[in-house]
Amino acid sequence: MRAFIERKPLEPTQQPPLTCIIMSKGTVVLAYSGGLDTSCILVWLKEEGYDVITYLANIGQVEDFDAAKKKAESLGAKKVFIEDLRAEFVEEFIWPSVQASAIYEDRYLLGTSVARPCIARRQIQIARQEGAQYVSHGATGKGNDQIRFELTCYALYPEIIAPWRIPEFYNRFVGRKDLMEYAEKNGIPVPVTPKAPWSMDANLMHISYESGILENPKSHAPAGLYLMTKSPEDAPNSPDVLEIEFKKGVPIKVTHVKEGKSKDTPLDIFSYLNEMGGRHGVGRIDIVENRFIGMKSRGIYETPGGTILYHAHLDIETFTMDREVRRIKQGLGVKFAEMLYNGFWYSPECEFVRHCIDKSQERVEGKVQLSVFKGQVYILGRESPKSLYNEDLVSMDVQGDYDPCDASGFIKINAVRFVSFISYFWYVTARLE
Amino acid sequence: MRAFIERKPLEPTQQPPLTCIIMSKGTVVLAYSGGLDTSCILVWLKEEGYDVITYLANIGQVEDFDAAKKKAESLGAKKVFIEDLRAEFVEEFIWPSVQASAIYEDRYLLGTSVARPCIARRQIQIARQEGAQYVSHGATGKGNDQIRFELTCYALYPEIIAPWRIPEFYNRFVGRKDLMEYAEKNGIPVPVTPKAPWSMDANLMHISYESGILENPKSHAPAGLYLMTKSPEDAPNSPDVLEIEFKKGVPIKVTHVKEGKSKDTPLDIFSYLNEMGGRHGVGRIDIVENRFIGMKSRGIYETPGGTILYHAHLDIETFTMDREVRRIKQGLGVKFAEMLYNGFWYSPECEFVRHCIDKSQERVEGKVQLSVFKGQVYILGRESPKSLYNEDLVSMDVQGDYDPCDASGFIKINAVRFVSFISYFWYVTARLE
Amino acid sequence: MRAFIERKPLEPTQQPPLTCIIMSKGTVVLAYSGGLDTSCILVWLKEEGYDVITYLANIGQVEDFDAAKKKAESLGAKKVFIEDLRAEFVEEFIWPSVQASAIYEDRYLLGTSVARPCIARRQIQIARQEGAQYVSHGATGKGNDQIRFELTCYALYPEIIAPWRIPEFYNRFVGRKDLMEYAEKNGIPVPVTPKAPWSMDANLMHISYESGILENPKSHAPAGLYLMTKSPEDAPNSPDVLEIEFKKGVPIKVTHVKEGKSKDTPLDIFSYLNEMGGRHGVGRIDIVENRFIGMKSRGIYETPGGTILYHAHLDIETFTMDREVRRIKQGLGVKFAEMLYNGFWYSPECEFVRHCIDKSQERVEGKVQLSVFKGQVYILGRESPKSLYNEDLVSMDVQGDYDPCDASGFIKINAVRFVSFISYFWYVTARLE
Amino acid sequence: MRAFIERKPLEPTQQPPLTCIIMSKGTVVLAYSGGLDTSCILVWLKEEGYDVITYLANIGQVEDFDAAKKKAESLGAKKVFIEDLRAEFVEEFIWPSVQASAIYEDRYLLGTSVARPCIARRQIQIARQEGAQYVSHGATGKGNDQIRFELTCYALYPEIIAPWRIPEFYNRFVGRKDLMEYAEKNGIPVPVTPKAPWSMDANLMHISYESGILENPKSHAPAGLYLMTKSPEDAPNSPDVLEIEFKKGVPIKVTHVKEGKSKDTPLDIFSYLNEMGGRHGVGRIDIVENRFIGMKSRGIYETPGGTILYHAHLDIETFTMDREVRRIKQGLGVKFAEMLYNGFWYSPECEFVRHCIDKSQERVEGKVQLSVFKGQVYILGRESPKSLYNEDLVSMDVQGDYDPCDASGFIKINAVRFVSFISYFWYVTARLE
Repeated sequence: MRAFIERKPLEPTQQPPLTCIIMSKGTVVLAYSGGLDTSCILVWLKEEGYDVITYLANIGQVEDFDAAKKKAESLGAKKVFIEDLRAEFVEEFIWPSVQASAIYEDRYLLGTSVARPCIARRQIQIARQEGAQYVSHGATGKGNDQIRFELTCYALYPEIIAPWRIPEFYNRFVGRKDLMEYAEKNGIPVPVTPKAPWSMDANLMHISYESGILENPKSHAPAGLYLMTKSPEDAPNSPDVLEIEFKKGVPIKVTHVKEGKSKDTPLDIFSYLNEMGGRHGVGRIDIVENRFIGMKSRGIYETPGGTILYHAHLDIETFTMDREVRRIKQGLGVKFAEMLYNGFWYSPECEFVRHCIDKSQERVEGKVQLSVFKGQVYILGRESPKSLYNEDLVSMDVQGDYDPCDASGFIKINAVRFVSFISYFWYVTARLE
Repeated sequence: MRAFIERKPLEPTQQPPLTCIIMSKGTVVLAYSGGLDTSCILVWLKEEGYDVITYLANIGQVEDFDAAKKKAESLGAKKVFIEDLRAEFVEEFIWPSVQASAIYEDRYLLGTSVARPCIARRQIQIARQEGAQYVSHGATGKGNDQIRFELTCYALYPEIIAPWRIPEFYNRFVGRKDLMEYAEKNGIPVPVTPKAPWSMDANLMHISYESGILENPKSHAPAGLYLMTKSPEDAPNSPDVLEIEFKKGVPIKVTHVKEGKSKDTPLDIFSYLNEMGGRHGVGRIDIVENRFIGMKSRGIYETPGGTILYHAHLDIETFTMDREVRRIKQGLGVKFAEMLYNGFWYSPECEFVRHCIDKSQERVEGKVQLSVFKGQVYILGRESPKSLYNEDLVSMDVQGDYDPCDASGFIKINAVRFVSFISYFWYVTARLE
Repeated sequence: MRAFIERKPLEPTQQPPLTCIIMSKGTVVLAYSGGLDTSCILVWLKEEGYDVITYLANIGQVEDFDAAKKKAESLGAKKVFIEDLRAEFVEEFIWPSVQASAIYEDRYLLGTSVARPCIARRQIQIARQEGAQYVSHGATGKGNDQIRFELTCYALYPEIIAPWRIPEFYNRFVGRKDLMEYAEKNGIPVPVTPKAPWSMDANLMHISYESGILENPKSHAPAGLYLMTKSPEDAPNSPDVLEIEFKKGVPIKVTHVKEGKSKDTPLDIFSYLNEMGGRHGVGRIDIVENRFIGMKSRGIYETPGGTILYHAHLDIETFTMDREVRRIKQGLGVKFAEMLYNGFWYSPECEFVRHCIDKSQERVEGKVQLSVFKGQVYILGRESPKSLYNEDLVSMDVQGDYDPCDASGFIKINAVRFVSFISYFWYVTARLE
Repeated sequence: MRAFIERKPLEPTQQPPLTCIIMSKGTVVLAYSGGLDTSCILVWLKEEGYDVITYLANIGQVEDFDAAKKKAESLGAKKVFIEDLRAEFVEEFIWPSVQASAIYEDRYLLGTSVARPCIARRQIQIARQEGAQYVSHGATGKGNDQIRFELTCYALYPEIIAPWRIPEFYNRFVGRKDLMEYAEKNGIPVPVTPKAPWSMDANLMHISYESGILENPKSHAPAGLYLMTKSPEDAPNSPDVLEIEFKKGVPIKVTHVKEGKSKDTPLDIFSYLNEMGGRHGVGRIDIVENRFIGMKSRGIYETPGGTILYHAHLDIETFTMDREVRRIKQGLGVKFAEMLYNGFWYSPECEFVRHCIDKSQERVEGKVQLSVFKGQVYILGRESPKSLYNEDLVSMDVQGDYDPCDASGFIKINAVRFVSFISYFWYVTARLE
């Protein structure tokens, strides 16, 4: 079993009682989804001699948590944790991403990436609390998630058992058929509905779809794929107008302007934006992206609430933040998005960047009005006590303190460098003559 | 008149004949729009003793060019140039911006900015050809356009007369009323339709709206404002599906998938994308942006074809460009957008960056399928002979050459740096205990 | 006099009593050096009807402050301020630059730039305290210093009188001869020693030399130019070894290893490093740099203590800071240096960047041993309680927890992207065949 | 032996004749130094059933190449290649690094890094030519060199055998003692002189020293360590003055100003600069750096010629390159240095960046005069036909076309953004009141 153990415990943890040593190789906290893969892993780990604690995080996905609990118990889990992490997911992980305008490769709002450190953190807290020697997960060997889980673990805790990277496991379970057979043989309830011809990952922020028939980057996604957003074609024929209020770069209130309804806790705000965005088909993208592992993959994402927030935050930020501060912050945000995507949430550099971005958001407050309609978010207007917009200064009708002659000097000094290039540019543009 | 002359001619230009010197202060090439402002400037320049050549660029705006020509002649222009720059505008200015994914402050596609060097270049070619000593424009003293025009001029040519920065001029024409009075007194035809309570700037790429009632950043734009795009609410209830083919990062063909119709010259492609985008209400934004001059301003833009191209190019680029090349190119694109916005198209740095970006686009070719619908662009699929997407490598069903064990080493080496931070992160996450 | 006044007071300041209005145009706080230029400006301002308060900052330059005081009084200054800013210069301006490893265009340690906001801040404090309406300085119209002074002023205070940009002044005083004549006519003591054929600017951090015979970039600087450092050829033939202790990225103690002598206040530390660096000829550079105003200029600098600190700080920083944090901080440091050079110390972006850099320095502590000898600084060794250097991990003689097999996976995953480029690189390297 | 083979051949290579299959596992091209480690590897590979071709690159290190050849033959190498790569090392690898001002973490001139792709490229050319299935090297499992060699290989060729990452090998040869014993048993000549208590790597560009007693970052390097440079204390008491002429950013001639002697081929130029720098003790540094593998290591380097070139190139570049182009190029240079350090020379991103940097160097030409003395390089003056330095423009004695009033407008427009921050900065600086 040496091969399974990818890392020695970092410090002496609670030793199991002597009798136990004979019977168990130790305790594993397994991130358990209730699905076929992790159910097989659970049984297989027991087979290999481990005590297994299962852990299922509620980060907003649609799931029958009770059924998952019972299933884990029936398969022999020593202990079962179902943890509601939704509030901390929004406040501690989504909010900093909103502040950063985190977007990967100009398109992807990082809904999966941002959930991983949140899930892994709790898993490690449980492992410590329960004195477990190992953590385990069912992420595959070609993806980003294995990295995101494990970098968090390496920053925090001991040994990882990653079955999909253990030859004994992945050579035994080559295809889904092998898992099904193993399940039947071991009394694992087998899903009755046929598996969708793609895989998906859902949480409060988004659902992602990939693999299977989506692996062909040319073929269009089937119409019925999306679960979180209505098709824009079927969405209502009139928009909903919302007002989002920000403070320190995060939303503190959302109001439906016509209905007067409002929400003001992080989880409520985000859920309500999901509802509104979902109703209007907001936030669907189909992209090819670059994995950390070096390969390109095709992913389809729907991020209703996150998309609304991205646009609203961008608007209030530009309204209240100095141009040059924003320029620097924009560069930090790009770096933050890469770190997040690559799994470096718990790293010294990501902590540093989060600190800097947070600092940049001190003045980012005010209200943004927007409408959501047929897949799109339209910014309508904004106001802020911290606005740096100066209506008198910019007005074409008011001269104010501004002296237009200053612009002459400004332009001429900016052109001083060009003197040496005039003959060159002359040549470049000499077409007519 | 010393004050008017902001720069000495850089080199001896053709001297007007001696008799002329007595009668004229020299010749000015005036960028003339046919509107009230530049008509007053035309007459005023004559009044001040200049010979005036008017120049009106056709860069795709809706305009009665004949009427403008006649008007200029009737107001005493020595010569009138109407120049159709549409093809060179698309090929030499819009295409490089598409390659760069040029977007200012994450939102603005730079439709006005990109037109300025194109217009100014021609103005200078005319000035040289006609032996004019001056160029002049009607851009205001608080905006970006004065800078964009003049930096191009300083990179290329001699003296600029910018009436809106000359106290004798701007103190005389404080408001629109003064211009109207002057027009009436001087036989300048006065517009009969009342002026819209905002100003706009139109070209093939976009229309921008600002000033007037739009100066209040909180108030919503009126429904009837947009001229280039249909309101998404009134747009067709079913999408149009297009296929855009790229080579070296620029579109070489667009095809309407259902209708089979296609376009393959730059101007035709861009015009057709405008038509499609316009029909479906694509590309409307309402933003507050940071002017080079240091103030924030509110602008509303509609960029139908440009928005479609931005999304399509992004997709084919990520599909065919190496991840790390793209990361560097992304940074260069951000710089390019700033230069473009600030008026530095004709600068050594912008030329350098355009060269680098062009180099990055060598492999960017292939076809993107997308639909436009109700204000939104949806990427549906893509294919390319230069694709770096490797379906076997990424597939969950094929192991191929990829050894999942390698990922273990990759993750662990990436975590080596964390060893020193474990106790810190332990503390950070110790909530449970 | 309208032309002189470049800006209206930003807010009502103390109004001078009525009688005063008749007699004075207001009070100016003049940054006064005691030299010919600012003495003439003093007299000229009085001539123009202002009350003049002179202000001379002691930032470590060699100067007869008493004589300057008497001279100002004798020329009619209403009040004379001699302010010892040396301690705050070191602590509030030099220290943040050390933290940032601030270096302009890879070579210049910014000794002049960093002094300007320090001087201007005090000038404005005095102006406020004394109820003066104006501040004035003698910086020329082609340089960086005018910008550095005035951007600080614009961030803080009211109107600036910059005689060297006022045509009435600069057209009157075209050359030094005019100043001399004016001085003689107005009882201003004229310097008896002939002026050096260059100009210089000195403070605690450095002396800069430029202009005059140095304007020819090809000609070598004369041997006798340097005042702060010994010529390396005449420097001692054996090194001095120092140990500098840092905390939060700034030195808290310097010890002469052999002599046991040590310093532990900021001003003492910096002065002692100047003494040591000066004795050994450390920190001389001859460069061409790019001014903010767009022209290249040639400057010669000697920065003895600053050069030692730059090297020592770099060493302890790399020793105690995570690699990726440092990479981000390095980028911020480059931006900081540009801001500092261009005069943006008091700007929202510079404040933001200083905050971020300061945060990055939390762990930067420890001791660096170095020797100074014949113009060079040699790092000899370092130690730190916060070191991230792990001797066991890196050792070739200890395997430790590190598994060399992990490197295989790391390398192979890093090479996944290359698969598509193999045929290309094959071609590139196929020379032999 | 499966474990040894880290990669399948990318394409069918020449198959050995059938009889061979029985006798050999295939042919390995081993990068052979003639030292104990690679001699043991040679024998061990044969023991394991491979045919071994040795390859020793002459990249300027001091070495008895004939002796190495004979030794390899006597140990059973099937074929021995001694390749003189010095000229291509300078032209194709060092020159681009000079253009880039490549420096890692602000201090290290990358002398080892830049040699690796040069050595590996040739190794692969030989492997192809000889129809070998494998390449092998003796780099350790904790260092950067394994990565640099292998990333080049993965970009170019087939399978790698890295004994120091093969458990069968590294568990057998735990310490030097094991190698010595193996050598004696297998007739490998054992070094008679005791090994220095550190390891070193030498080539034309530099010598690096690390490991052993140098692993303690606090302890000073022994005086006698350096082989390429004289101790500054023992260096001549008067400087040598050199003039280096550049074209397109690379040196094309070096002249000893007093002696009139000059060199004008790349290899001669670089060798002569090494001689001059070595004589005066130029280019010694002692640093802690961050390895790609995630650990910090201590290295001591001497880079005499490279250090001179770094300074001279920086000077001529700033003299002839536009400020803003240089700013962008500086950022690209930082990225290039990281790629080079991490082993990504043959990568799409590094090729892209080299192209861009090369483009930036088009105007970088002219002559730099400098002196070398006691460990330091002093720039004395420069001249260039492509200079962007404008003596008239910058002169304090000539006003020229430059209007100082423009600076007022420039400064005021730059300060427009500050208006909103005045009360804040007022507060920040209000100390006095």
